[in-house]
Amino acid sequence: MAIVEFDMSGAAAFVGKDAVESLKQEIAEASVKLKEKTGEGNDFLGWYDLPLCGDEEYKRVLAAAEKIRSDSEVLVVVGIGGSYLGARAVIEALTDPFANANALSGKGGTAVIFAGNSISPVYLKSVLDLVKDRDFSVNVISKSGTTTEPAVTFRFFKELLEKKYGREGAAKRIYATTDKARGALKKMADAEGYETFVIPDDVGGRFSVLTPVGLLPIAVAGIDTDALVEGAKTAFGEYESIDNDCYAYAASRTALLRSGKKVELLVNYEPGLHYMTEWWKQLYGESEGKDGKGLFPAGCDFTTDLHSMGQYIQDGVRLMFETAIEVREPAADLIIEPDEDNYDGLNYLAGRGMDYVNKQAAKGTAMAHIDGGVPNLKISIERLDAKSIGGLIYFFERACAISGYMLGVNPFNQPGVEAYKKNMFRLLGKPV
Amino acid sequence: MAIVEFDMSGAAAFVGKDAVESLKQEIAEASVKLKEKTGEGNDFLGWYDLPLCGDEEYKRVLAAAEKIRSDSEVLVVVGIGGSYLGARAVIEALTDPFANANALSGKGGTAVIFAGNSISPVYLKSVLDLVKDRDFSVNVISKSGTTTEPAVTFRFFKELLEKKYGREGAAKRIYATTDKARGALKKMADAEGYETFVIPDDVGGRFSVLTPVGLLPIAVAGIDTDALVEGAKTAFGEYESIDNDCYAYAASRTALLRSGKKVELLVNYEPGLHYMTEWWKQLYGESEGKDGKGLFPAGCDFTTDLHSMGQYIQDGVRLMFETAIEVREPAADLIIEPDEDNYDGLNYLAGRGMDYVNKQAAKGTAMAHIDGGVPNLKISIERLDAKSIGGLIYFFERACAISGYMLGVNPFNQPGVEAYKKNMFRLLGKPV
Repeated sequence: MAIVEFDMSGAAAFVGKDAVESLKQEIAEASVKLKEKTGEGNDFLGWYDLPLCGDEEYKRVLAAAEKIRSDSEVLVVVGIGGSYLGARAVIEALTDPFANANALSGKGGTAVIFAGNSISPVYLKSVLDLVKDRDFSVNVISKSGTTTEPAVTFRFFKELLEKKYGREGAAKRIYATTDKARGALKKMADAEGYETFVIPDDVGGRFSVLTPVGLLPIAVAGIDTDALVEGAKTAFGEYESIDNDCYAYAASRTALLRSGKKVELLVNYEPGLHYMTEWWKQLYGESEGKDGKGLFPAGCDFTTDLHSMGQYIQDGVRLMFETAIEVREPAADLIIEPDEDNYDGLNYLAGRGMDYVNKQAAKGTAMAHIDGGVPNLKISIERLDAKSIGGLIYFFERACAISGYMLGVNPFNQPGVEAYKKNMFRLLGKPV
Repeated sequence: MAIVEFDMSGAAAFVGKDAVESLKQEIAEASVKLKEKTGEGNDFLGWYDLPLCGDEEYKRVLAAAEKIRSDSEVLVVVGIGGSYLGARAVIEALTDPFANANALSGKGGTAVIFAGNSISPVYLKSVLDLVKDRDFSVNVISKSGTTTEPAVTFRFFKELLEKKYGREGAAKRIYATTDKARGALKKMADAEGYETFVIPDDVGGRFSVLTPVGLLPIAVAGIDTDALVEGAKTAFGEYESIDNDCYAYAASRTALLRSGKKVELLVNYEPGLHYMTEWWKQLYGESEGKDGKGLFPAGCDFTTDLHSMGQYIQDGVRLMFETAIEVREPAADLIIEPDEDNYDGLNYLAGRGMDYVNKQAAKGTAMAHIDGGVPNLKISIERLDAKSIGGLIYFFERACAISGYMLGVNPFNQPGVEAYKKNMFRLLGKPV
């Protein structure tokens, strides 16, 4: 069994097997571009061949995580975009939703709090208030060190740490994940004596979760990073031949795009996967949304959002197809007990696990949406554990690269992200 | 000044004033339908004339909130869709993002935790573990009492409360917001002696935030519900004539839809507004997404998501227009201090408040997106306080009704939501 399985049967009524089969040649070409590094953006393929972090550095990441877990109630992760989404996705998928609340109330563990991903003083002030009377460390993540959101934010945490622990004490609680040699943050880190970790030159932000960018916060959250990386390696090993589930996903979404679909809706049935969807939205939106092309990536958490977006999906404009993530074995289950009074009429479920009900909801939803004109793709992992999530990450990255090449874009640049910054800098009077 | 202001100048290059002006007659007709209750769905207009909660019941809501705040570390709100999104939106907009964490670590206040909005045993087990050794109460919110997600969930909390406090003690900690006379939950509440609050017959879930559905959890979170309702009343008072900002929003989005746009992207620059967007997605998606019609409602939190979805918005398929929410006065500000070393090059911002920087980011983004072919609408409120949020809620509700009538649908039904349930019940073997 593949670490990540793909099933396109729910799209068969919309794009035949033929439409997908006819893409074989394009898939083969995209695959060669990737493997032989001959496609556009080929200087950003560091993520393709795992591992992304050398042995010596990986050991330092784990040692830093251990130190932070021993001396900090809170780790503040300062980063935006690819510098926080991957870590947040993995942490929320694999830890208790109240892990931070538990850590903050002294029940063990280190809370991992994300900041520097907006310019809101309201949010930043709340984080500063939260940590000011607690022991905390900061992991600042920025290739250049000059991206406005994390740079402004880091000034405040640096000042607070220096006030609390002195300049030297603060330096021992600041971990900088940045360029190996250049840039403002690297310069500052060397001058102040911060421990540094490397963002490889050939890995873009949205592909960086398995570099120290993601690995340090993930390890601080107590997640088995060995298993995470192993899962990704397992997936990599399965995509040697082009007949694989990953490329089948790339082909299916390409066929659906070409059949006229505009929106891909990634859905899950586990609330913990919410940020995996946010990470996926960046991965696909930023890789493909250029030159007037690309599927608009949107997300839903089901069954939650069946009671908000469900009506539109069922009966609105037929813009979208759905890609559902299935987790085969739940991380926990609860048995529904019979109730004497049975006011709610649920006794017909007595003795069933909630996961069974959740699975029938997923099946029923796929059928309803297919009936309503929404093609359904399905991606399955065995369970919510580090290895499966590592596999899923690599599955999505690899499929994204293949998809992007089939779309005819450079999947590894993001020229449009500069546009708002240019205007903002002009309005702020930034010296040029 | 209107409590909620609307500015369509950022769409002028895409739909002229003429296109919007030409909708005057349709707006007038929709307005009459609403006012005289002659349109489709006219038995669901209870939200139109405020207030939504009688004096006697409102006093009971506040008294219950006071009791919960005095005897519970946690209030678990069990509800899905319109039975939780409004309360969650208001609470997250107006309280500290770490309010729950603070309450759970004994720093005061009652944590408000939402459950029963999925069928995930993983999430439910976490909430059960969180509350089992704490004093807690439950507010179960369901018109019928038989909706699967909240009904299954409530069984577990009822059992836990009865184990902790005995059947009588539990009954004093369960508050049921439900139909005034019928349904499984009303029957159970009467039999067990739970205090009940009414979901009015003529108010659908997505319009129910200013009924006890929203007001009880919002009051438990310590928010001034008087001011919230007053804000909504203020907005209502401003929409007597059809020349108002609310109807101008309805007209602008209708003109943009008719010009070919498929997606409306609601954006904010305050992380606390994230769930206002989720609430808005239900309000518009469920009201308009039917008969193969309607704008697909999507949301972004900026500047956060400019580093994920920004590339697509700038350069992808020209599907969307953007509606930005501006908060004029920040709830807090932080001044950027000069730094001796200035590694990050941010000293040009020294002496500026972060809110100023955030505002320039918003301006720069609107300009960049307009340049990139994304029309920009702007909705402004004065500050993040209960009165302004109350105004914003009513603004969106009223504009939604007008928009829906202009689209030619019944904005108050949701027939498509049943489709997945029917399949699920069949798969689960529910007795008919």
